[in-house]
Amino acid sequence: MNYQIRIIPGATYLGNHQTEFVVWAPLAEDVSVHILEPQERVEKLVSTDQVYHRGILKDVKPGAKYKYILQNGKETKEKPDPASRFQPIDVHGNSEVIDLNFHWTDGSWKGIPQKELVLYELHIGTFSKEGTFKGIESHLDELCNLGVNAIELLPISQFPGNRNWGYDGAYHYAVQNSYGRPEDLMHLINLCHSKGIAVFLDVVYNHFGPEGNYLGDYAPYSSQYYHTPWGHAMNFDGHGSDGTRNFFIQNAIYWIRDFHFDGLRLDAIHAIVDPSATPFLEEMMEDINELKTILGREICIIAESDRNDPRFIIPQSAGGIGMDASWNDDFHHSVHTLLTGEKDGYYSDFGSIQELAKCYRDAYTFTGQHSEFRDKRHGKFPTGVPDENFITFIQNHDQTGNRMFGDRLSTLVDWEGLKLAAGAMFFSPFIPMLFMGEEYGEINPFLYFIHHLDQQLVEAVRKGRREEFKSFAWKGEPFDPQDESTFLKCKLNRDLVKDKKHRGLLDFYKKSIELSKHFRLDGTMDRKSMETISFEKQKVLILRYYGNEKLLIFQNYHKEQNVISVVWNGEWEKIMDSNDVAFQGKGELIPSCLNFANTKELLLQPLSIMVLKQKVN
Amino acid sequence: MNYQIRIIPGATYLGNHQTEFVVWAPLAEDVSVHILEPQERVEKLVSTDQVYHRGILKDVKPGAKYKYILQNGKETKEKPDPASRFQPIDVHGNSEVIDLNFHWTDGSWKGIPQKELVLYELHIGTFSKEGTFKGIESHLDELCNLGVNAIELLPISQFPGNRNWGYDGAYHYAVQNSYGRPEDLMHLINLCHSKGIAVFLDVVYNHFGPEGNYLGDYAPYSSQYYHTPWGHAMNFDGHGSDGTRNFFIQNAIYWIRDFHFDGLRLDAIHAIVDPSATPFLEEMMEDINELKTILGREICIIAESDRNDPRFIIPQSAGGIGMDASWNDDFHHSVHTLLTGEKDGYYSDFGSIQELAKCYRDAYTFTGQHSEFRDKRHGKFPTGVPDENFITFIQNHDQTGNRMFGDRLSTLVDWEGLKLAAGAMFFSPFIPMLFMGEEYGEINPFLYFIHHLDQQLVEAVRKGRREEFKSFAWKGEPFDPQDESTFLKCKLNRDLVKDKKHRGLLDFYKKSIELSKHFRLDGTMDRKSMETISFEKQKVLILRYYGNEKLLIFQNYHKEQNVISVVWNGEWEKIMDSNDVAFQGKGELIPSCLNFANTKELLLQPLSIMVLKQKVN
Repeated sequence: MNYQIRIIPGATYLGNHQTEFVVWAPLAEDVSVHILEPQERVEKLVSTDQVYHRGILKDVKPGAKYKYILQNGKETKEKPDPASRFQPIDVHGNSEVIDLNFHWTDGSWKGIPQKELVLYELHIGTFSKEGTFKGIESHLDELCNLGVNAIELLPISQFPGNRNWGYDGAYHYAVQNSYGRPEDLMHLINLCHSKGIAVFLDVVYNHFGPEGNYLGDYAPYSSQYYHTPWGHAMNFDGHGSDGTRNFFIQNAIYWIRDFHFDGLRLDAIHAIVDPSATPFLEEMMEDINELKTILGREICIIAESDRNDPRFIIPQSAGGIGMDASWNDDFHHSVHTLLTGEKDGYYSDFGSIQELAKCYRDAYTFTGQHSEFRDKRHGKFPTGVPDENFITFIQNHDQTGNRMFGDRLSTLVDWEGLKLAAGAMFFSPFIPMLFMGEEYGEINPFLYFIHHLDQQLVEAVRKGRREEFKSFAWKGEPFDPQDESTFLKCKLNRDLVKDKKHRGLLDFYKKSIELSKHFRLDGTMDRKSMETISFEKQKVLILRYYGNEKLLIFQNYHKEQNVISVVWNGEWEKIMDSNDVAFQGKGELIPSCLNFANTKELLLQPLSIMVLKQKVN
Repeated sequence: MNYQIRIIPGATYLGNHQTEFVVWAPLAEDVSVHILEPQERVEKLVSTDQVYHRGILKDVKPGAKYKYILQNGKETKEKPDPASRFQPIDVHGNSEVIDLNFHWTDGSWKGIPQKELVLYELHIGTFSKEGTFKGIESHLDELCNLGVNAIELLPISQFPGNRNWGYDGAYHYAVQNSYGRPEDLMHLINLCHSKGIAVFLDVVYNHFGPEGNYLGDYAPYSSQYYHTPWGHAMNFDGHGSDGTRNFFIQNAIYWIRDFHFDGLRLDAIHAIVDPSATPFLEEMMEDINELKTILGREICIIAESDRNDPRFIIPQSAGGIGMDASWNDDFHHSVHTLLTGEKDGYYSDFGSIQELAKCYRDAYTFTGQHSEFRDKRHGKFPTGVPDENFITFIQNHDQTGNRMFGDRLSTLVDWEGLKLAAGAMFFSPFIPMLFMGEEYGEINPFLYFIHHLDQQLVEAVRKGRREEFKSFAWKGEPFDPQDESTFLKCKLNRDLVKDKKHRGLLDFYKKSIELSKHFRLDGTMDRKSMETISFEKQKVLILRYYGNEKLLIFQNYHKEQNVISVVWNGEWEKIMDSNDVAFQGKGELIPSCLNFANTKELLLQPLSIMVLKQKVN
């Protein structure tokens, strides 16, 4: 299982005008490379096993364009390379030979230790005016200034057209041509590293986009037996599945090794159906761990999973899959429902202070209880899994993009609620992740948008989108996902920061990140020395940390002022208050120094969060 | 997850002429019980959750016949109870209320410790002349005498008609009416316990038989997303799956608690597709382990799995599913191919001495290597799993019944090969399992046979059977599975034992069981103190045990005499030799006492096995 002896699919430039072509194509009798530019020619690849076809071609330099000719008897097809490193025209066009050499200057970069991560999810097309890799670069200093130390790029796999919300990529080795070229991505990552920012990539190993994917002509990428709500599952355990596995494992290695990514976020691993003795993800982690050792820098592999299954983030030595961290939807849903009162879909399972409290204590709200929404018991208690293996967020691309109007929290809840939600995330023991723009309360939506070239598919998507929202309480028609204006609506508008309200929120984020990073690293914010006190009726939650430092975090989810009885002793210093006028709050009700000998009741502002630290005499 | 608070489906007689009816029927708006005998009446059940419908009915005694009336709007259907405890007529007929009280006399029975098990798989219809539970009873002393201490009954779930090879059961709580009544089964188990024989049941939790199963009218038993080569997978992780799980978990508990079974063999758990955080099997094992503690006797849950996945038999505390043991197909396939030279289907992956040697050492031959047959890597190394968690066999119902002519090993290999195969199994460190009749070399086949009532289905099965064998080397037409003669061909013919050859084999089995049980229990036969020496060209395998006692086991798979060089010292006593004329062998070539100081070469008889024990001075 040595990653070095695996087979690297695609066209690899070897130097000296030589390029190696390797394609997994057990469904073709013969495969030839059709070089289309600069000089047309056809060369047959060799297969010794009728599984992989290979050949080293002379006089093929970076920039050469090619397709594969697949031959079965008299039938021939000409298709792009599934492992294409670049599609200069589109998903249907020629593939391009790429030179992966780049003048890296990040030799001393060791990455960010997992426990220190402050992640920032961003969509390349809408993050900057330019909508490109290059467009990100001028904003990196803002992110550093905010306290973010890792950006997580939504998928960059080549998709049809010029714009896509991210999950219709058909070429998982090719960067989207409208975002830039592979070397532009390398330039961005190199620059990030020079500024102390790690770069994560969102990769989709559970499906391929519906347009421009010619996998079925090449190999059994799809499962014969399993389906997901999105269609055929990928083939990770059937005949020929070693090939599917190799394709994706090499893909993970490609981004980490050749592009210097610091980690991956794996999309929807619950849609990877794979009951093998050694599941694909476990095999992938074996190889990545080996690579980690070789590279000698921090690599963090994050799962998106809605299954609340700790197995994914338990080390292999303890019988787990060995991924490093997992998104925690329960935390999002708890905070979201407390603030919005929404009850549609999966939100129907959430909405109480106790549920949020359980999520702080047990990392998941659902650890085996019955879920109404799922109509079954859900989740498992994550015994022994450390805090930094859970990624929390109060917004992300899904929680906005899956809404009919792509609403961000800023347009759904009272402004004070934004600080409360952010504070709830930052002062949790878990790793925080922001969604681009939330730090200053961006109000532009993040919508589902596409730019498919196949008009039948466009109609099908439009129809599906309308159907999808029928069961929700939203009124009206969804925006047309294909219309360019839908995409343009989603661009960040940083001019908002000129407004005091937005500026105040940004300052709250900065201060919270700084403070919480400190208490996360000094061992104060840790579930091992934490308790929760829930006031269900008042909608108040108190977190008490009693590790290195003693902290009390008061969260009031009520839209009214609230009085709660308190039972502590000693003198406490208030180190953070969302009501602070510096954050454009409603004004502080609690003094900056508090002696609980004289204080038995606290008056809390509506939708507020406050952090107290015990004074040490 | 307390098994006692789970919901017991079916009709439970409570005494005092009262019967409780519980049915999982979320697909019906209303459910009524239609009592058909002795006095017709209809009573509506109550549902508080629209999931389970229940009611305690007065004046309903054991022996009462009923069906359920399922109502949706104006549509009504009348169907047997999916959790019927008895179907006196057939799969389509009325269900019967059963009294589970029985005068058990096995109060002091503690079961057989797993390490001591010598299992004996039997098919009720063909094991005895009568083909009933009762028919088994007169043969128990023979089994005791043989050294068997556990019988494993092929499935007894009610199937269509009077005969079935076992895997078309549609009522998993009902004993097959042609085998007897529930009380007859209890009588058999009680008698077995009095004779020191444990009783295991083969249960099928991965599918229901195609005829007489009305599950789709009641509840979402079937998965929306997953298929197996046999059709829809059961729903263990989708909406409503708690109900499917409860149905099967209660089933496991029902047989163990109410019928005093000592263990279960779960059919084809690789066809249970369930990527849940807490898989069904893990949940089931939690409940069974709790029951185990309450009952205070040995309970052993055995998996049939073709996945070579140690997770199933790793304790829950170590991140596993926590089943007790697993069938080991690789051992069978290794021995079978060495003896027969067959290369069809899954046998194509086997055939060398090294593969058998690996199976002795690592329990599985495939621990992650590429399998040609599966066209993917297969299996996982079972680190830390103890020897007694693996069940070995050289024949079973599948390995005969899945052949076109149902051939047993006795009709495929030279007679001496039968002793070699048996010895290879018994003198392994694993738990042995015999298939009824193999102990005396039964020559009647064990075929696939059915007695479906639906003629269309019969035609489909006949056609499928013919298709299935097309790719195999067998010539001719398979027997008609529906024809009674196909079933009758499979009855054991114990008259064979009168023949010297068969008697010799039986004596070999007895002696091997006795000796190997001794060396298994005294810690001699243990993989921790074992090595293998392979002579690939000569087709000879030597097992060397160096634990408590020192043993050398010589296995010659060659059809000719064979000379091998030996390098040991000391004096050794031959304690078992398949060539012994007492076993009707070809005559011993090696003296009963051997000094390796004087012996550097050994001459081995064709297809022979010999056990030497080092003398201690």
